[in-house]
Amino acid sequence: MYDVVIVGAGAAGLTAAIYAGRKKLKTLLVTGPNIGGETNTTNDIQNYPGYEGPGPVLMKKFYESAKKWGAELLEGRVLKVSKPKNFVLELDDGKKIDAKTVILCYGRERRKLNIPGEDKFFGRGLSTCTTCDAPLFPNKDTVVIGGGNSALEGALELARIAKKVYLVHRRDKFRGDEVSVEKARQEPKIELVLNHIPVEITGDKFVKTLIVEDVNTKKRKELLVQGVFSEIGWETHTDMVKGLVETNAVGEIIVDLLCKTKTSGLYACGDLTVVPHKQTVISAGMGAVACLEAYRYITGSATTGEYVK
Amino acid sequence: MYDVVIVGAGAAGLTAAIYAGRKKLKTLLVTGPNIGGETNTTNDIQNYPGYEGPGPVLMKKFYESAKKWGAELLEGRVLKVSKPKNFVLELDDGKKIDAKTVILCYGRERRKLNIPGEDKFFGRGLSTCTTCDAPLFPNKDTVVIGGGNSALEGALELARIAKKVYLVHRRDKFRGDEVSVEKARQEPKIELVLNHIPVEITGDKFVKTLIVEDVNTKKRKELLVQGVFSEIGWETHTDMVKGLVETNAVGEIIVDLLCKTKTSGLYACGDLTVVPHKQTVISAGMGAVACLEAYRYITGSATTGEYVK
Repeated sequence: MYDVVIVGAGAAGLTAAIYAGRKKLKTLLVTGPNIGGETNTTNDIQNYPGYEGPGPVLMKKFYESAKKWGAELLEGRVLKVSKPKNFVLELDDGKKIDAKTVILCYGRERRKLNIPGEDKFFGRGLSTCTTCDAPLFPNKDTVVIGGGNSALEGALELARIAKKVYLVHRRDKFRGDEVSVEKARQEPKIELVLNHIPVEITGDKFVKTLIVEDVNTKKRKELLVQGVFSEIGWETHTDMVKGLVETNAVGEIIVDLLCKTKTSGLYACGDLTVVPHKQTVISAGMGAVACLEAYRYITGSATTGEYVK
Repeated sequence: MYDVVIVGAGAAGLTAAIYAGRKKLKTLLVTGPNIGGETNTTNDIQNYPGYEGPGPVLMKKFYESAKKWGAELLEGRVLKVSKPKNFVLELDDGKKIDAKTVILCYGRERRKLNIPGEDKFFGRGLSTCTTCDAPLFPNKDTVVIGGGNSALEGALELARIAKKVYLVHRRDKFRGDEVSVEKARQEPKIELVLNHIPVEITGDKFVKTLIVEDVNTKKRKELLVQGVFSEIGWETHTDMVKGLVETNAVGEIIVDLLCKTKTSGLYACGDLTVVPHKQTVISAGMGAVACLEAYRYITGSATTGEYVK
């Protein structure tokens, strides 16, 4: 019986593990192969205070701390969480794990474009990770689809490598940081294609064209590119905790200020929650809150503040 | 007119300033002389993921980032915040500042013991900061009052310097991390004085005695010490925003998951909120949330997630 099982090993999960270790809780961290999570996909972190540099290097520091404080790691996928009395987690290899508390922090998955050619050309010119795959397109023509920070920063990163970067966005305004919007506007290699949506990817063995459509006139045009980067957002999967949590309209887990879900002893933190700002420092803070609340739940402590005389 | 005025420059305020700078908001950071806040009083941070070392060094990194992103700094004390239409902040030097949004993150103050001798001996053997003043007591007899992490860690720190450390706590169990509780129990220089409260500090020019009382038998005894460290908790002051925020029983500001208070455009984050876990990483995360929410308020953005097709 574990005191706490943490599902996911990104910024939130690793921070929860550090705090759990410091509280001497018997802790299991269940994770897929991607330890470090979404932060790993950022090449140059400028907004995790106290650190500047590559995401994977920061996440390695998180991981080393979690190990130092005694977190036990298990690679696997959780299929189902139930709570007959304590919690039981069923894994994809059939293993069952007992836990007094569970912290959910396995993040989100990137959304699909749902257009013809998407499946055929994935990995053949179509990528969902600019940071990972931009280096494959030196002096090539490329396009980034999306309007948030990921899209803007992806386009800027590509501009340093590729010959040309179209930036296709369905609106006329971006949602990303002003800093990034300005940089993108000033970068001569980037051509903005606003008020357009992608409708088809074509090619032979590899991508040759992205067809886009004007949202107002419905007129289509072809962008001749070798690389298509989809940076259009995310999906949150919560089947494994069906009935144990409530979700909002886009499927994110509803939590209160203390990362509690509707089930006692079950906490959620980081990108899979309704907090709209998906940031490493926010996930880390929530990981700490979730773990400290799990600790209170386990120890039956009702103390909420410091010493009150 | 500032887009955002941040009141307080600890982990929360400096993080908010970094995020505000990245959003190109016109930002003012109003702070007392203690830039870095409570984190500065910790000598060895082990639970801000990605960093290990002295608190002031970490806070200097936060501060350098905030400056790099363009935060304007003003040393001063805010006496009153009002909201005739936009916000108006009145400072102790009579200055008035206009702001579209305000982020409160000036933390808490340490609680007083309220016993005879406290005022007389403050700075004459009585201290409220072990990290700051422990080095003044080599080979001396000392006492720490309190039962949380600050008290436990303070006692352990003192034990490396002083000859003897009494640890006076009014209950028979500690609220701090198990790691610290165990260390304190195993440290031969530390003598636990449980179920006792301090009732008087005596001496001549400097502290000579702390008198403590058994909470059950009411029997008193004298601890002969040269140093008394009070680590008994905190008070949150919210007079400056009276009427604009709601507070809980111990005076902490009630916020929702997005750091919103009951007044639109007014946010609170970090140690002065109802979040019971006062941690650098939690404050930093909340600072980011508060700023990103302020940005949404200013820009009138209603987007809560990523691109939704």
